[in-house]
Amino acid sequence: MGGAVDLNCDLGEGFGVWRLGDDEALLEFVSSANVACGFHAGDPSIMRRICEQAAALGVAIGAQVSYPDLRGFGRRFIDMDPRELVDAVVYQLGALDGFARVAGTRVTYVKPHGALYHAAIDHDDQARAIVEAVRSYSSSLAVLGLPGSALLRRARAAGLEAVGEAFADRGYLPDGRLVPRGAEGAVVHDVDVVAARVVQLAREGVVRAVDGAVVRVDAGSICLHSDTPGAVALARAVRAALRDAGVEVRPFTAR
Amino acid sequence: MGGAVDLNCDLGEGFGVWRLGDDEALLEFVSSANVACGFHAGDPSIMRRICEQAAALGVAIGAQVSYPDLRGFGRRFIDMDPRELVDAVVYQLGALDGFARVAGTRVTYVKPHGALYHAAIDHDDQARAIVEAVRSYSSSLAVLGLPGSALLRRARAAGLEAVGEAFADRGYLPDGRLVPRGAEGAVVHDVDVVAARVVQLAREGVVRAVDGAVVRVDAGSICLHSDTPGAVALARAVRAALRDAGVEVRPFTAR
Amino acid sequence: MGGAVDLNCDLGEGFGVWRLGDDEALLEFVSSANVACGFHAGDPSIMRRICEQAAALGVAIGAQVSYPDLRGFGRRFIDMDPRELVDAVVYQLGALDGFARVAGTRVTYVKPHGALYHAAIDHDDQARAIVEAVRSYSSSLAVLGLPGSALLRRARAAGLEAVGEAFADRGYLPDGRLVPRGAEGAVVHDVDVVAARVVQLAREGVVRAVDGAVVRVDAGSICLHSDTPGAVALARAVRAALRDAGVEVRPFTAR
Amino acid sequence: MGGAVDLNCDLGEGFGVWRLGDDEALLEFVSSANVACGFHAGDPSIMRRICEQAAALGVAIGAQVSYPDLRGFGRRFIDMDPRELVDAVVYQLGALDGFARVAGTRVTYVKPHGALYHAAIDHDDQARAIVEAVRSYSSSLAVLGLPGSALLRRARAAGLEAVGEAFADRGYLPDGRLVPRGAEGAVVHDVDVVAARVVQLAREGVVRAVDGAVVRVDAGSICLHSDTPGAVALARAVRAALRDAGVEVRPFTAR
Repeated sequence: MGGAVDLNCDLGEGFGVWRLGDDEALLEFVSSANVACGFHAGDPSIMRRICEQAAALGVAIGAQVSYPDLRGFGRRFIDMDPRELVDAVVYQLGALDGFARVAGTRVTYVKPHGALYHAAIDHDDQARAIVEAVRSYSSSLAVLGLPGSALLRRARAAGLEAVGEAFADRGYLPDGRLVPRGAEGAVVHDVDVVAARVVQLAREGVVRAVDGAVVRVDAGSICLHSDTPGAVALARAVRAALRDAGVEVRPFTAR
Repeated sequence: MGGAVDLNCDLGEGFGVWRLGDDEALLEFVSSANVACGFHAGDPSIMRRICEQAAALGVAIGAQVSYPDLRGFGRRFIDMDPRELVDAVVYQLGALDGFARVAGTRVTYVKPHGALYHAAIDHDDQARAIVEAVRSYSSSLAVLGLPGSALLRRARAAGLEAVGEAFADRGYLPDGRLVPRGAEGAVVHDVDVVAARVVQLAREGVVRAVDGAVVRVDAGSICLHSDTPGAVALARAVRAALRDAGVEVRPFTAR
Repeated sequence: MGGAVDLNCDLGEGFGVWRLGDDEALLEFVSSANVACGFHAGDPSIMRRICEQAAALGVAIGAQVSYPDLRGFGRRFIDMDPRELVDAVVYQLGALDGFARVAGTRVTYVKPHGALYHAAIDHDDQARAIVEAVRSYSSSLAVLGLPGSALLRRARAAGLEAVGEAFADRGYLPDGRLVPRGAEGAVVHDVDVVAARVVQLAREGVVRAVDGAVVRVDAGSICLHSDTPGAVALARAVRAALRDAGVEVRPFTAR
Repeated sequence: MGGAVDLNCDLGEGFGVWRLGDDEALLEFVSSANVACGFHAGDPSIMRRICEQAAALGVAIGAQVSYPDLRGFGRRFIDMDPRELVDAVVYQLGALDGFARVAGTRVTYVKPHGALYHAAIDHDDQARAIVEAVRSYSSSLAVLGLPGSALLRRARAAGLEAVGEAFADRGYLPDGRLVPRGAEGAVVHDVDVVAARVVQLAREGVVRAVDGAVVRVDAGSICLHSDTPGAVALARAVRAALRDAGVEVRPFTAR
């Protein structure tokens, strides 16, 4: 029994009158909030609200930085010049940190969103740009991303804390990569199965792959999806299963 | 002889490929840079560049906050809900402060831009919203605005340093208000006259009104316009005249 | 028995990943679609989809023009220069008409949205700007707005068809104006009552005011709200009641 | 002596207070105006003005369509879904056509801008999307692009008029491709040489390559750059040289 795990989740992804996901409910279950910073979603008023609630609940605040692309929700690769990308990341980080300060806390980590998250896996120039932005802002910030990504390598090389994440409801291949979206087994839908996987990830650091193999996942945090209809129910079930297993949920940045 | 004065100027008001004014040249002459934060002008790369140059030159960095209105350059009144305005100001302030931190310094004051500057003169709800944003971000920030405005009253009431500004090249009425734009005498075009007025403002705190009356102006800073063709030549002349008069130019926030 | 009425509704008010209201379902019940044009909501892909569906169903397409304000959903007054407003309206109108043409039809009317709708009631310069834009684009376009508004007066004076609308679920004062939002009786919530009011409006041109008085409403169209949870159920009930009463539902622009 | 040629130029590429190039002066010299549609540059008021002037001068109006990227001036590749790209092109085309109609004329062709222009050379899905948008809007529109590009192939296959362009001041390789930017000979700076090249292109359809070889260029239009300081002087010189050579300058869409 015992141990500790971090649950992270994308939050604050509405814009103006539009909402996406139930931020308030999800904040009750996670320990790290990846807060949208206004480039793919999120507006100043949403950012303030999430930061206030996160601060009150002791949830860590991370900057979920993105390409500038409200229309495409940051899901479209943009071939940004690395220097412009550095600046775009600093801008978002500073803006969110402003709300964190107003709420009496600070941004403690950065996680890229959508197409930028994917680019940062193997687009070395963009990965390096994100790291450069983070490091120049504060060397005490952590970087959260995919295990094995260029982003985490570059972050480590720059002396930053680099943390990999696992995905609660995604299928894994025997080599530790995710089953591609659209392929059989890409998403695990059964709530109880997902909850059990999270417990196993938290306690043993392993997950069962689609072929049954036991795969080690180097994850300092587990990502829960926020934008599906059953997101809140899933988060609740995961949290309950962790409690029953005696696993503490706390921000990875608090360790 | 002697004394000190602050010269402030709107800077960083390009966007993407577009430029407005000669930021680099003007930074040599002013002591406080009102830096656009991306809402009416300014983009992350411009903000970084201005902050780096300002930090290197010892020029104070102020957040020139605006309504969200790139298309209208922030010159159109927007009837924003005060709570949304608070959040919009915090967002801009945080974003700029990020670049200031990266450059090894901090934002030290806030000055509203364009239609927001004008609204803050007598739109008490919006003036209060700006002050609330500044105060919640940091009570050590100053607020720069029009003498006699609701903005400065509210800032003082909130315990913030509230600083009024004079305008180097604007005509004054005998009661201390500006000659309205479009009216005779609204703008002083002669460079030498402007320079002499600045010296008088700096040393005696007075300006000669359109009718010849000597008017006291309660100004802790003098604003130089940046977006006219002759802006650099004017700034150079003002700076030279102040040097000849033995008046030191330094940030009002440094006093 | 008999007669005909137009039912109009705001549609296409999502943006990117975000949705607002059930466009597809509502299109089954209305005869005129006020389609958002990208300034307060709506993006090119949503505009295409709505236009295709409207064309297939014989629903008239109107340009729901707005201030440029995605963040505020067009609900904030912007003090636009009338000439810029003319141009902003032509832009939106042309963009939507493009999708209407691609779908084999045309935009047939213009209805301002949100704060622009309200401004057009008594802000004569802005009302005139909207009319000038519509007239310059095509004098065969109709204008839909509030009975008694500057917008409709200006439209009539410019030789355009000017059509007033009634509100299915809004309370009326004895003088024919709406009960202000927030006041008792501002919104009629009972679906059957709303349906009955629409039938009475369609057949007799009158509505019962909050004090019981019978008020004549000069309306060529009846507006159904689209952004409330029960919007589809309400539209279905209204449509059924009209059918039972033998009232035909058809675009006001088809008459 | 004799013959005719089209000169095209990017125009209307300011935004709000910002200007880029001297639209008015250039309109005097070209026969086809590639008008920015608000996605990389251009705002409704600029679009109106350019359309009015072009209509008055008999200059053809083309839609210079772009990725949605004001910040990057449309110079950054965006991995847009082809269906979304179709819709983005229709939106821009319709908006500009609205202003053309108001000015008493019509958009007669489409030319992609910046990164979209480059993508359309060999990104077949995006090239096809542009063509699909144009064709669905009006099969009488022409498409202007790089000779040999996927864009022109797809346009021809769709039954549209597909027109290649030559570049007045760009160096050519012996195989007819452009000397890459940054390489020696990429840009021809001498105004008289450029003017002579345009005359040769217009009369003989050939250009002298960097190695002296005579290269055939399949061009129905010649592009003049608009955003360099000497753009107006160059356009004037080109126009004068064509007049002296007896070459008529007229829109390619007028033939």
